[in-house]
Amino acid sequence: MSLWNDMNLAGKRALILHHDDLGMFQAMNGAYAALGFPTGSIMLPTGWAAEAARTTLPHADLGVHLTLTSEWDNLRYRPLTGGASLVDGSGHFWKSVEEAWAHMDAGEVAVELRAQIEAGKALDYDVTHIDTHMGSAMRPDIAQVYIRLAIEYRIAAFVPELEGKAFAPDDAKVAEELARVIAGCGLPQFRVIDAYSQPPHARRAWLVDTLSKAGPGVYHCLHHAALDTPELRAIRDWPVRAADYAGLQDADVRRVLGEFVPLTYRDVRAGLQRYGFPG
Amino acid sequence: MSLWNDMNLAGKRALILHHDDLGMFQAMNGAYAALGFPTGSIMLPTGWAAEAARTTLPHADLGVHLTLTSEWDNLRYRPLTGGASLVDGSGHFWKSVEEAWAHMDAGEVAVELRAQIEAGKALDYDVTHIDTHMGSAMRPDIAQVYIRLAIEYRIAAFVPELEGKAFAPDDAKVAEELARVIAGCGLPQFRVIDAYSQPPHARRAWLVDTLSKAGPGVYHCLHHAALDTPELRAIRDWPVRAADYAGLQDADVRRVLGEFVPLTYRDVRAGLQRYGFPG
Repeated sequence: MSLWNDMNLAGKRALILHHDDLGMFQAMNGAYAALGFPTGSIMLPTGWAAEAARTTLPHADLGVHLTLTSEWDNLRYRPLTGGASLVDGSGHFWKSVEEAWAHMDAGEVAVELRAQIEAGKALDYDVTHIDTHMGSAMRPDIAQVYIRLAIEYRIAAFVPELEGKAFAPDDAKVAEELARVIAGCGLPQFRVIDAYSQPPHARRAWLVDTLSKAGPGVYHCLHHAALDTPELRAIRDWPVRAADYAGLQDADVRRVLGEFVPLTYRDVRAGLQRYGFPG
Repeated sequence: MSLWNDMNLAGKRALILHHDDLGMFQAMNGAYAALGFPTGSIMLPTGWAAEAARTTLPHADLGVHLTLTSEWDNLRYRPLTGGASLVDGSGHFWKSVEEAWAHMDAGEVAVELRAQIEAGKALDYDVTHIDTHMGSAMRPDIAQVYIRLAIEYRIAAFVPELEGKAFAPDDAKVAEELARVIAGCGLPQFRVIDAYSQPPHARRAWLVDTLSKAGPGVYHCLHHAALDTPELRAIRDWPVRAADYAGLQDADVRRVLGEFVPLTYRDVRAGLQRYGFPG
């Protein structure tokens, strides 16, 4: 990628450690504060988004975790705008990406994604980037909207390389279409490291192994660390989040993380601002 | 009150113990489940409303806690509808009742309150009643909307007697206007017992004393019990909520509560359905 060359990252191993789902519930924010890593993104349709935005971390690097799905039975989120295609019968976002992709009107999505970015700005934090909750913005027509919004707002965007399985749609034709959108978008792409579907009990070993073996490239390593509290335990995937929190405090994991050039989305945004946004 | 007579409550001491703010955050729902008292009301603009609605308590008696304010700095709620007069610059409800009353358009409020009741019904629980978060629906013109909605939906409503200080507006003229609305509304009124502004450390003693001394009448005794978790501790008034939770488990408090005829809003709704809604 040309930006990575411009930023003198060619041939290096660089990594953004990215805290997903800030604001989803309070224990996510608690983990962000306790861990102290700068980068993550906030879900604006949630009540605790306001707390996440009020972080006192001096080098906070926070984006908008663009949200189009509401995946739990007991904790749910509603769109900020009135698009009827965005919601199920209960008035919340669709539970699965499949349902969301089957129903969502791209025009209504565009209005909603813009509203979420504006809501981030209205919470008075420096929105450095956008990324996508559960990959729901990677429907090819929505990915185009997503990329256009990053360029318009002059912020960075998480854009995945599709070589691995992460973020690649199951349907081969859709995956091909998305690959075309990404190849032509002009924004830099990230290799993805995502422990989510790995067994929680082996989190530490998987992270050490995966990070150690990662070759040169610019990585977006996402995690979902949460404090282990009664609130977290009410969420179905709590073992994943508790394992991420414990794993990221592990000395060996910290050591292998330390072998990467630490990167933030603020850096990427600065690179884009210096070397030029596409379009 | 004629309904209380019809329901054979004249001269008796009857009480609805009411759990406010269900869904505000997860520890509120946890306390509801742990305490086991049937009656409370859910804030629909919150993520955890869905969990509150999924209670497995067999005799749950749940209403809609109509919400027009978003009082914290770190946990906030947005309207379900687009009324511009309902929100501050961040897109959330106004923080204080004073700000809300100064800005809210009654027409936009009516649309929002109806949407909150519909949102409760969409979560598939039996909505037995409405009540009002922080008394924000007691602006006299909004109180009229509130009463009309209860009558239209054939559900009960918390309507306070204004003899004490609770729910009576500070402005004497407004208080008089509200008193007129309530006197003419045709729905039964409740004496209010509200420990909120009492010192948390004396909660148990205050409840025992207040409940013991309460004369004949039908009471709405509201509380804000929450589990004492890190999530609760993130909320500014946590000592109040922790004290309510501890107080309601106290043997003496339970004893004095046991001296009242236990009433639910389902009972009140049944009474209204049997003896006739006004209008």
